[in-house]
Amino acid sequence: MSETGVTAPQGFSAAATRAGIKPSGKPDVAIVVNEGPEYAAAAVFTRNKVFAAPVKVSREAVAGGALQAVVFNSGNANACTGAQGEADAREMQRLAAQGVGADPVRVAVCSTGIIGDALPMEKVAAGIGAAATQLGDHGAAAAEAIMTTDTVAKQVVVRGSGWTLGAMGKGAGMMAPSLATMLVCVTTDAQVSSAALQRAVEAAVADTFNTLDIDGSTSTNDTVIAMASGASGVAPAQEELDAAVHEACAQLAALMQSDAEGVTKRVSITVAGAADDAQALEAARTIGRDNLVKTAMFGSDPNWGRVLAAVGMADAEMDAENITVAFNGHTVCERSAGAPGARDVDLSGADIDVVVDLGTGGAGRATVRTTDLSHAYVEINSAYTS
Amino acid sequence: MSETGVTAPQGFSAAATRAGIKPSGKPDVAIVVNEGPEYAAAAVFTRNKVFAAPVKVSREAVAGGALQAVVFNSGNANACTGAQGEADAREMQRLAAQGVGADPVRVAVCSTGIIGDALPMEKVAAGIGAAATQLGDHGAAAAEAIMTTDTVAKQVVVRGSGWTLGAMGKGAGMMAPSLATMLVCVTTDAQVSSAALQRAVEAAVADTFNTLDIDGSTSTNDTVIAMASGASGVAPAQEELDAAVHEACAQLAALMQSDAEGVTKRVSITVAGAADDAQALEAARTIGRDNLVKTAMFGSDPNWGRVLAAVGMADAEMDAENITVAFNGHTVCERSAGAPGARDVDLSGADIDVVVDLGTGGAGRATVRTTDLSHAYVEINSAYTS
Repeated sequence: MSETGVTAPQGFSAAATRAGIKPSGKPDVAIVVNEGPEYAAAAVFTRNKVFAAPVKVSREAVAGGALQAVVFNSGNANACTGAQGEADAREMQRLAAQGVGADPVRVAVCSTGIIGDALPMEKVAAGIGAAATQLGDHGAAAAEAIMTTDTVAKQVVVRGSGWTLGAMGKGAGMMAPSLATMLVCVTTDAQVSSAALQRAVEAAVADTFNTLDIDGSTSTNDTVIAMASGASGVAPAQEELDAAVHEACAQLAALMQSDAEGVTKRVSITVAGAADDAQALEAARTIGRDNLVKTAMFGSDPNWGRVLAAVGMADAEMDAENITVAFNGHTVCERSAGAPGARDVDLSGADIDVVVDLGTGGAGRATVRTTDLSHAYVEINSAYTS
Repeated sequence: MSETGVTAPQGFSAAATRAGIKPSGKPDVAIVVNEGPEYAAAAVFTRNKVFAAPVKVSREAVAGGALQAVVFNSGNANACTGAQGEADAREMQRLAAQGVGADPVRVAVCSTGIIGDALPMEKVAAGIGAAATQLGDHGAAAAEAIMTTDTVAKQVVVRGSGWTLGAMGKGAGMMAPSLATMLVCVTTDAQVSSAALQRAVEAAVADTFNTLDIDGSTSTNDTVIAMASGASGVAPAQEELDAAVHEACAQLAALMQSDAEGVTKRVSITVAGAADDAQALEAARTIGRDNLVKTAMFGSDPNWGRVLAAVGMADAEMDAENITVAFNGHTVCERSAGAPGARDVDLSGADIDVVVDLGTGGAGRATVRTTDLSHAYVEINSAYTS
């Protein structure tokens, strides 16, 4: 299948190989190359104070505003690996640069998988070398090679007027992804500066990945990298670029939510009537992280009392006697007390929409997307070291 | 069994009945009476902005510094029940006062159970009336009547020099209990002022229930109430009182941790090497609430990388390249990288001790106790409206 993901825009090639990092033998090394003529780049990284060696190396590379390639591996996060880990990340950078004929300072590195084990560098080196000889229209193969606990490869394409944007991603969220690190690579053949690209990426991430909260845990390796080749010869306005990057990130975030570990319900939590948007976001996130709310969703239980108990602990202004809650459009709680028929609302479907009004009369509003807390989540995360 | 729990000290009586609030027909109403000659009282309540009607009523009662009785019901929290809920809580207060011959402003009310349903007041009234006629040395019956998802009744007795302190409790924690509200009633025959008792209760709660964190959720109804009858004629020094209240609360907290919903592991998380104790507590709590750490514990998986990923998001100063982690006394991570044999540490036992040093060189230290996240936790909290 051509025309998918990161190789859909002009000026990009990709390749993937089975390097043997994953015990399963599945593809685990990928390279995405920007063939120019331009090399604008932008990125957003994890906020975790404990960040992985490849994040350190990529931060330095992106600081220059230009990237010619990104090299990825799955199966090992190269996180909490000390000085050896940093040396290994730099060696990945050097090997990929050598393989694709790039300047090493213009190559970023992304790793995902188990934390705390040294990379098997002999396998990694062979894998990078092999991938570099197979570059082509292989965006789909690259998207597959970055998967860990993902069950489907995640790619999107957004068309502009005479230009194209592609992206691939894996994992579950940015501010608070599952253990499966979130990695996203966005490519475009638009002619844009790294500053314009950075602005578009930051705005899109804030509104998409940063409001996806699967389990409140934030990875050591989260990375969103964007590269622009300029190969289309079209220079879109900032607003067009912003819209396309936002659309791609929104689609990837939705794919990640649907593929979250153990998910049986997609839960959208909107908080309105807050003093401001930031307080609405804080309240929505507090509800979305509450294990009692999440287990009730798993049980299709319209247990609005748990929503009130959760939001009452949020660091947000509220009128505690005037909170309203609706599930799937049915009001279940008015003035902080139960509404008629509240216990009978049907939450058996795969999508649950929760809307909470804090009753302050303010215009603050925000939405967080999360999932339920299921037996499968516990199983996936207790049965495997990952 | 005499001499247990709240009726162990002189000057206290108790009773419990089956009022029919619980569908199971188990005991669900209790009264604990301070027969004097003194009536000093103290209390600590939930920090949740959404608090239940009985919390409002009890706060007012305790503000006077004296209590003659506490009336309890389980099976219904009388939370998020609006004006009717407050009227019902005041009616419980009035009925109990009438039944035991007390001034209503000297009676506190505690409720636990489902949120959002109106109390069945006819049953509650009959239950309070019946209990009031059966007062005696029935501390054990009272402890049983306040249970919800608890599997064992929780009582303790601490002996002073010529005086005694008893207590009963239910639930799982104070700052962050499971959905099962934490209720604790402490009684003593010591001669102490309400101010001295309040000081002892606040100090004990901060160090015991407030560092027990089962699932990060905080109930609308959490209450710790203490009453002193002075019936022993002994006036202990503040330090003696503090020590006895602390010992009772510590024992109850340990009972709650062992009986937490779905628990298969008791996990103690100590953070050292922090800039100060408050930052150590924040870091320990962040680790203790992380679902990936908690599922790893359920799987007996010495996955120290998840501990590092969790603590990296804590709002605490740390040297991210100099963090040390030990599981059950074995160092599994040094200088933020894996130690030899880290993957082989045996965590198959019921108790797991985690010690994390943040590497700042500071003397800050704190311990939080939590539990694992198990299939049973998901089952208990998804299968029942509670």
